[in-house]
Amino acid sequence: MTNPSNILIKYLPILVWTKKYNKGDATGDLSAAIIVTLMLVPQALAYAVLSGLPPQVGLYASMLPLIAYAIFGTSSTLAVGPVAVASLMTATAIQPFSAIDISLGIQAAVILACISGFILVLAGLFRLGFLANFLSHPVITGFISAASIVIATSQLSTLLGYSVGGDTVIELVRTIYDNIDKTDSVTLTLSIITLLFLIVNKKYGGTLWINIGLSKFWAQTAVRIAPAFLVLLGTLAIKADIPWLDSVRTVGDITGGLPSLSMPNTDLSLWQALWLPAVLITIIGYVESISVAQSLALKRKERIDPDQELIALGMSNLAAGFTAALPVSGGVSRSVVNMDAGAVTPAAGLITAFGMIIASVFIANWLGDLPRFILATIIIVAVMSLFDAGVFKRTWQYSYHDFMALIITFSMTLLVNVQSGITAGVLLSIGLHLYRSSRPHTAIVGHVPGTEHFRNIDRHEVEVCPDVITIRVDESLYFANARFLEQRILEVLAENKMTKHLILMCCAVNDIDGSALEVLETVNEQLKTLGVGFHLSEVKGPIMDKLNKSHFIELLNGKVHLTQFKAYEELSCFNTYSQPNN
Amino acid sequence: MTNPSNILIKYLPILVWTKKYNKGDATGDLSAAIIVTLMLVPQALAYAVLSGLPPQVGLYASMLPLIAYAIFGTSSTLAVGPVAVASLMTATAIQPFSAIDISLGIQAAVILACISGFILVLAGLFRLGFLANFLSHPVITGFISAASIVIATSQLSTLLGYSVGGDTVIELVRTIYDNIDKTDSVTLTLSIITLLFLIVNKKYGGTLWINIGLSKFWAQTAVRIAPAFLVLLGTLAIKADIPWLDSVRTVGDITGGLPSLSMPNTDLSLWQALWLPAVLITIIGYVESISVAQSLALKRKERIDPDQELIALGMSNLAAGFTAALPVSGGVSRSVVNMDAGAVTPAAGLITAFGMIIASVFIANWLGDLPRFILATIIIVAVMSLFDAGVFKRTWQYSYHDFMALIITFSMTLLVNVQSGITAGVLLSIGLHLYRSSRPHTAIVGHVPGTEHFRNIDRHEVEVCPDVITIRVDESLYFANARFLEQRILEVLAENKMTKHLILMCCAVNDIDGSALEVLETVNEQLKTLGVGFHLSEVKGPIMDKLNKSHFIELLNGKVHLTQFKAYEELSCFNTYSQPNN
Repeated sequence: MTNPSNILIKYLPILVWTKKYNKGDATGDLSAAIIVTLMLVPQALAYAVLSGLPPQVGLYASMLPLIAYAIFGTSSTLAVGPVAVASLMTATAIQPFSAIDISLGIQAAVILACISGFILVLAGLFRLGFLANFLSHPVITGFISAASIVIATSQLSTLLGYSVGGDTVIELVRTIYDNIDKTDSVTLTLSIITLLFLIVNKKYGGTLWINIGLSKFWAQTAVRIAPAFLVLLGTLAIKADIPWLDSVRTVGDITGGLPSLSMPNTDLSLWQALWLPAVLITIIGYVESISVAQSLALKRKERIDPDQELIALGMSNLAAGFTAALPVSGGVSRSVVNMDAGAVTPAAGLITAFGMIIASVFIANWLGDLPRFILATIIIVAVMSLFDAGVFKRTWQYSYHDFMALIITFSMTLLVNVQSGITAGVLLSIGLHLYRSSRPHTAIVGHVPGTEHFRNIDRHEVEVCPDVITIRVDESLYFANARFLEQRILEVLAENKMTKHLILMCCAVNDIDGSALEVLETVNEQLKTLGVGFHLSEVKGPIMDKLNKSHFIELLNGKVHLTQFKAYEELSCFNTYSQPNN
Repeated sequence: MTNPSNILIKYLPILVWTKKYNKGDATGDLSAAIIVTLMLVPQALAYAVLSGLPPQVGLYASMLPLIAYAIFGTSSTLAVGPVAVASLMTATAIQPFSAIDISLGIQAAVILACISGFILVLAGLFRLGFLANFLSHPVITGFISAASIVIATSQLSTLLGYSVGGDTVIELVRTIYDNIDKTDSVTLTLSIITLLFLIVNKKYGGTLWINIGLSKFWAQTAVRIAPAFLVLLGTLAIKADIPWLDSVRTVGDITGGLPSLSMPNTDLSLWQALWLPAVLITIIGYVESISVAQSLALKRKERIDPDQELIALGMSNLAAGFTAALPVSGGVSRSVVNMDAGAVTPAAGLITAFGMIIASVFIANWLGDLPRFILATIIIVAVMSLFDAGVFKRTWQYSYHDFMALIITFSMTLLVNVQSGITAGVLLSIGLHLYRSSRPHTAIVGHVPGTEHFRNIDRHEVEVCPDVITIRVDESLYFANARFLEQRILEVLAENKMTKHLILMCCAVNDIDGSALEVLETVNEQLKTLGVGFHLSEVKGPIMDKLNKSHFIELLNGKVHLTQFKAYEELSCFNTYSQPNN
């Protein structure tokens, strides 16, 4: 790694894959890029609108960030750009600023992208990707499910022909209800038709086209570019000046073309107000990206480098920050399409970026007549698949603690806001984990006849030695459970007054920290006073190394036995067997 | 427990021990109470002064709280009352208020006692004593060691004949240095003599008296009441109006007698400002009390009930709160003396309380002439034993993470203040624990020939089957390490391309949460795609129960084996042994 060219290769994966790039790769990447571009144009506009930003901001977020990812990324299929959940989080974070002035809102979005970029790059350089793991699965699914409901609800008023805002589902529903007399029946009718069309297209479109006679590839492609087709159709209809479409609201002026490179606003108070939402957007975005990148890589039997992915996503967000765009991350649906459509290298992303540039320069201005409700239906159908109703039942059945974390994250996200949802979920997960490990499972074990195994006397037919008690503790011993263990041992001794030796079976003990060592020393002292021998068995190598550095082993009023079987042999238990009495 | 008299007995342990109280008990308790009272009078005055409160507040804290503990407590030897560390914490917490007006300071101390009492009683009723376990041993020792330095430093200026305040050691040392010209040489000389006397008394007093011919009991008693003797001597000296003692500062008016029962100030803003320090005083006080109570109980082969102890200490603090006193807890040195001097029941505490009432009514007013420097020397000698220099070396040798927690708590307490010290320590301990368990130890294991054991191939001479890889993971699988495990499995597979079966040996896995289950399902899918069988072995009973509630076992592309040995048998590994290649 000290070789400079190795470092270059590590941090610039593009140097590797361009070397063996060939014509076959180019064909696959090109066809994938065309399809992804046709998906991305409407999505980019829609997610920018969802964030409360002008539509072109979404286009800007689909140019330089994609190029940056193609240079630094290790996944051959991850499609970077604006995504639904991050756009919703952006909307919540910048709302106080865009309420004052939309240009201040854009500046806030740009700062979010910059902070997110800095965090990701730093985390990548310091290899801190593991921190994202503290977002447990119930927290992620609870959050995403609630976010999908919030997003869909936020689009409802657009389907009715007017647009109202709100932070929580309750607020949104109430505002929609308060303004229900503003409903435009033409927009509503067309919305319902469009929505049905998109749902049918997504669910049955592929089969339909195949039945009509298209090949699988073209059938899938037809399904995927249907939203782009809707955008085209809707815009043309408005441009045709059909009188009964007069009441349909359009996107309005889109400043197409290329974003100007610009420095973000350096007003520190803005940065201070935005750092916490930026951290959350970063974590959620990274977790989503890395999950999809990893699962797609595995299908191809490729490897991705999680730390380099942090750097790549960080550079993408910095690129977004310097081209007046909103935060980006890897999109789930677009990445899957990208792979299916034949992408074999990050060049697909590179070509997509150029496709978006062309779209922005030549088509964007023309898209000002695009009806808003079409974007709303595209968003709703996109997030529908994010909601997973089954997860509640599955989690409930599997684990009560996980269900608590899930339901708290879900309801806080739905009823308060996205930031409190995630924060509460993470703190609760950590709290419940600590609680669980602070009262570990312990078992009194006995010998399974005819084997070298020792099992829980309550669960198995075992034999025990009347004056030797063996306690197996199923957890690492550390400060939070050390005193619990002490109490447990004293309880067991109080219940078994004949005990001459107590063995602590450590096969499931993966660490003993300083607090636990202190407690073990106290227990040892106490047992010595009571005339009871204190033994350990099946202590793991690394822990034994640690114990040997302390005085514990010298002071031990008993022995450390390699296996529990040998402990029983040495304490000559096999001659004095009896049936367990509890 | 539904029987009302059982509930009474549970919550009022006094009903039990008074039943069999006899003359022998009374003799022991009385002699212990006399000695403890003689220790407690000077300590009570000293700790009140240390808190920045009038001396009589310390006396008040040694009356009703002791009676409350005798009624509710389960330890026969714990001596409750004002203690050094809690007094320092009280001093820091009430300083902003006593700076305005000393009576406001007293009100703040009273509110601290009340909040602490409420928390303890509630924690006892809800059995939340385990929460105190999150204070790890390094955090406690780091905190106590630093607090002892802060306390000793805070008394230095009194030894020089003037009194200055300050929150941190640096501030104290600077203020002392700035005022060094105020030094009174008479006070300084007498302070040095007194300090030397107390140190010699503590270290060699017992041996000296025994050599002179006293019995062990009387020698120990002489050592223990030496501070009371000093108090008497000092007060008499001032009362004698010796001219060269004119410059020695005295305690000043002590309002002896009994405290009036009074409601605490109900100004909510005061309570809000004090709840956090009150929580910390509560936790530190409880941990100190329960540790000493438990270790003394064990010497007597008695049991204490940690939850009832919460209630007892809570009632003591409520008693303090309603008699204008400062927060109390179980004192380490006084409890040891209490036991050694013969206390056999909580009656010893009851008699001590009456001793303190007598002292307050008949002697306190007379003690106004007690020189301040004598209290300062008593405090310094008392806290000297709290500082444990050896703990730094021992912790460093045993565990780097523990040492980090120790040194951060120690230096934050010393340099910032007591509250940041504890808070930083607790957060760091939890953070480091999570970090450690988020990157668990894993080992590739092989079969130890001639046994049923499987051990790390890097540490032991083992045999492995070339197309079966067994990974043992030494940690519960939960959200923070689930993805780490996934990556580790993929790495291992990439290094061993011949693998046909992968066994996850779960003997040290004590829990699998929902996030980890999700990851295992993903790994299972991935291995299926690669044509590799996925097996589990030695899964614990409670985890197997959980897994059976999910679909994981049905979907598993392999089997769950009761033991690793049986897994090897079933995959017919024993015929294809080879030497491990790494």
